[in-house]
Amino acid sequence: MADLLGRPLRVTVWNEFVQEKSDPKVQAIYPAGIHAVVADALREHLAGQVTTRLATLDQDEHGLTREVLDTTDVLVWWGHLAHDRVSDDVVDRVASRVLRGMGLVVLHSGHFSKIFRRLMGTSCRLRWREGNDRELVWTVKPSHPISLGVPSPIIIPQQEMYGEFFDIPTPDELIFVSTFSGGEVFRSGCCFYRGHGRVFYFSPGDQDYPVYHHPDIRRVLANGVAWAASDRATLLEDYAPEYCPDHWFEPKAEAEPGENDHGVHPVG
Amino acid sequence: MADLLGRPLRVTVWNEFVQEKSDPKVQAIYPAGIHAVVADALREHLAGQVTTRLATLDQDEHGLTREVLDTTDVLVWWGHLAHDRVSDDVVDRVASRVLRGMGLVVLHSGHFSKIFRRLMGTSCRLRWREGNDRELVWTVKPSHPISLGVPSPIIIPQQEMYGEFFDIPTPDELIFVSTFSGGEVFRSGCCFYRGHGRVFYFSPGDQDYPVYHHPDIRRVLANGVAWAASDRATLLEDYAPEYCPDHWFEPKAEAEPGENDHGVHPVG
Amino acid sequence: MADLLGRPLRVTVWNEFVQEKSDPKVQAIYPAGIHAVVADALREHLAGQVTTRLATLDQDEHGLTREVLDTTDVLVWWGHLAHDRVSDDVVDRVASRVLRGMGLVVLHSGHFSKIFRRLMGTSCRLRWREGNDRELVWTVKPSHPISLGVPSPIIIPQQEMYGEFFDIPTPDELIFVSTFSGGEVFRSGCCFYRGHGRVFYFSPGDQDYPVYHHPDIRRVLANGVAWAASDRATLLEDYAPEYCPDHWFEPKAEAEPGENDHGVHPVG
Amino acid sequence: MADLLGRPLRVTVWNEFVQEKSDPKVQAIYPAGIHAVVADALREHLAGQVTTRLATLDQDEHGLTREVLDTTDVLVWWGHLAHDRVSDDVVDRVASRVLRGMGLVVLHSGHFSKIFRRLMGTSCRLRWREGNDRELVWTVKPSHPISLGVPSPIIIPQQEMYGEFFDIPTPDELIFVSTFSGGEVFRSGCCFYRGHGRVFYFSPGDQDYPVYHHPDIRRVLANGVAWAASDRATLLEDYAPEYCPDHWFEPKAEAEPGENDHGVHPVG
Repeated sequence: MADLLGRPLRVTVWNEFVQEKSDPKVQAIYPAGIHAVVADALREHLAGQVTTRLATLDQDEHGLTREVLDTTDVLVWWGHLAHDRVSDDVVDRVASRVLRGMGLVVLHSGHFSKIFRRLMGTSCRLRWREGNDRELVWTVKPSHPISLGVPSPIIIPQQEMYGEFFDIPTPDELIFVSTFSGGEVFRSGCCFYRGHGRVFYFSPGDQDYPVYHHPDIRRVLANGVAWAASDRATLLEDYAPEYCPDHWFEPKAEAEPGENDHGVHPVG
Repeated sequence: MADLLGRPLRVTVWNEFVQEKSDPKVQAIYPAGIHAVVADALREHLAGQVTTRLATLDQDEHGLTREVLDTTDVLVWWGHLAHDRVSDDVVDRVASRVLRGMGLVVLHSGHFSKIFRRLMGTSCRLRWREGNDRELVWTVKPSHPISLGVPSPIIIPQQEMYGEFFDIPTPDELIFVSTFSGGEVFRSGCCFYRGHGRVFYFSPGDQDYPVYHHPDIRRVLANGVAWAASDRATLLEDYAPEYCPDHWFEPKAEAEPGENDHGVHPVG
Repeated sequence: MADLLGRPLRVTVWNEFVQEKSDPKVQAIYPAGIHAVVADALREHLAGQVTTRLATLDQDEHGLTREVLDTTDVLVWWGHLAHDRVSDDVVDRVASRVLRGMGLVVLHSGHFSKIFRRLMGTSCRLRWREGNDRELVWTVKPSHPISLGVPSPIIIPQQEMYGEFFDIPTPDELIFVSTFSGGEVFRSGCCFYRGHGRVFYFSPGDQDYPVYHHPDIRRVLANGVAWAASDRATLLEDYAPEYCPDHWFEPKAEAEPGENDHGVHPVG
Repeated sequence: MADLLGRPLRVTVWNEFVQEKSDPKVQAIYPAGIHAVVADALREHLAGQVTTRLATLDQDEHGLTREVLDTTDVLVWWGHLAHDRVSDDVVDRVASRVLRGMGLVVLHSGHFSKIFRRLMGTSCRLRWREGNDRELVWTVKPSHPISLGVPSPIIIPQQEMYGEFFDIPTPDELIFVSTFSGGEVFRSGCCFYRGHGRVFYFSPGDQDYPVYHHPDIRRVLANGVAWAASDRATLLEDYAPEYCPDHWFEPKAEAEPGENDHGVHPVG
């Protein structure tokens, strides 16, 4: 997509960044935060095609000001304990930006984030277990760009179990389905089209295991970001209901620049 | 579905009921309100299999108390001018009930209602025009129960134009697509699965035209309500994250009643 | 569906019926043939709403004459070793009938049957293993009628492993996903709409294990047959390209019976 | 996709090439054949990223020898009067190649070609009319790469009418829906995933009108070819059932090159 846009893809990686500062076990795996490791994976696989920024909960406006979002092509989201501390205003802003074309990659426990639930419209509930499960990530859509370059199955030696029923709308594209040692199954790689934007949910990754250091998982992160990026150089304006008089779409014989636009009225 | 449940289907038809009281043109078409005519269509086609109740905006809790919702299998929604006057608490309650299995049929300008936008997660924006368009409703999924007994196309002599791009998630099942004299196109009959519930959006129907008196449209209303009904006699409890210890699903050799349940913990 | 049609549903259960006659192990489990046990499951759960007939490979026209198909609402298909011995003429006839509205339920190794591959257009390849796997069948679409009345997971103590990638088109509705002790995953309950007909593929069931005696599996067989049945009393005529002159769909002021039909010409 | 592959995309444009030689009206619009104009559109929009070849019915093996297909990334198909003259062997070969990852773009009356019907599994029937309809092509999936750079609607001043019901499986992605002056509607831009390959059907384009000279249509042709191309440098081997012993996917401690492969046995 970098060539379509004629510039590198601008990615912002957001993390609540809580447990890495408070939990020694997590700190040992992700000393600079999960977001730093995810951004590193993107640069590793999309070198020269991507620029990355970091943003966290405790920054002003959670680091997701209008200026930041207006220059973000794809936003990556990781959250777990602090979903409720994300302000509704920021969620509104992110949701609007997604509907106008920004890509969104939601990771693991982000299934319960305000932004993901907002865009899905469902409870996003699932079954779970902290244990000693091994996760196998199977590809069920092998022609999809997100599955490029990874084996089927990807083997994650230790992972938290996430299991069905996962209360999401049926994904527009189902890429990965995982099994766990305990016998459970989970739709672990799901693509959604929402408005003009694309959303990729990917469940592997937990603060207690070094999943984002796993080479195949890092490849999927990069593939997912590349897929979620719009191929449109500029995003749309805010949505508004559009009143369309008769013949609004006809070419005008002698149109002045802009004259072909049609007015916008309250919805009928 | 009536026989599966072993009792008639309990339908509540909700209407903001505003323009029928204030606009003589609308009053002439729907003197007792749009909801009364819709309920009549349901009884006409589902005689003996359905009971209907009416509810409106200006009732206490908009007529959608917990008691009413707890005894509603399918809710029909018509709104236009007063979407913002619907309380968020009622929207929460309806959304929760849909995710636990209640059917929802959203009509026409209800595309901009809080409940529909909540469940879709998108702007639900569209193009529109009050004019003299004729609408033709074409069936694109002829094996679907909602298309049973209606011609393709259904001809609606006069209708407001609704046109693409209609900002909804890709429907799980696309039943009808409409064309208008002005040349526009619209996905006019769309099915969505959300949680354990089913949602049918059907766009024909406007306060200024007698669309809900049209025999074919009345048949679609009844088909849509029958489709949206769950075949489960009782709905689920409220969603909660479910912690599932190892072997949670194994049958127990000597389980006491209820002992097979597993505890519910905060999500991990 | 029985009430919609005003008569019982007419089901034909087809079986190649080979291994039950030649392999003592299979014979011990299915002495009268797999088809007999499947038909019994349908009568058990759809008592009074269904009539069943049996048909096998070695009958004249494999028991699927035009007369039989013309009085079949849903056809159930089990085959394994003898796919190639099914005549192309019979496959043509069955495929045509499905596209005109007959339901088709394809079981287990029927994934490689001529009729299933014809309707899917893909190789229908999969991974497999005869072993000692336990299969867990998880529901991922809990509001779907096919999942009614069965637990998630269904536990099948011993089963042949079927694993992804399963080369089918993306199912229109994905109901069940199975895991196996070996760690594999499989989309085991898949719904497809083809023409005016419905196709349900259900993978559990193997000649070497008593899977069709399993109470939950029997319930799924009945649910699948009920779902696959058309709600139209009569099926369509054979497809032909349809030439539609201007205004072909307008109501005629003084149409004689049948006059409203429009001619059929070679395709343009 | 050109950069992913590290070489230009190799496109073969196939045309039955019959009416351009026999019908003066068609000849006037497409003197060198429809295929020549389509290939020109691809080179116009994908300059430097694509190489094009032409193939026609009356060549040896219809110009689609194994050598040609083995060096084709995307095949474009136009046919109308001579579908039956395409040999089944060539259709088998093309279908196998699509399932292993070759892209296929099927144009207009190609909806009735053997290869499209083979991959769809349905009758691919539609309504049609030669007349003086204007076609409007509306985008219903604005975030999809195939809709990049074209207005909604695309206006085609004169076109043959194609109308619903179009007997295809529900498209995996529905990009365009067309309306016609006569009031009909048609799903005119449809994406399908089949095996490891991608299929794009695009209905605008008829031998009697200069549709493939239309700037917006040319852009869609290029977008469709780019979308259909696999991002995998080499295609898969022919499909075969795969027997997978226990632990087949485990990494081997001291694997020799190739030793990790597992044998292939007859299906079970």
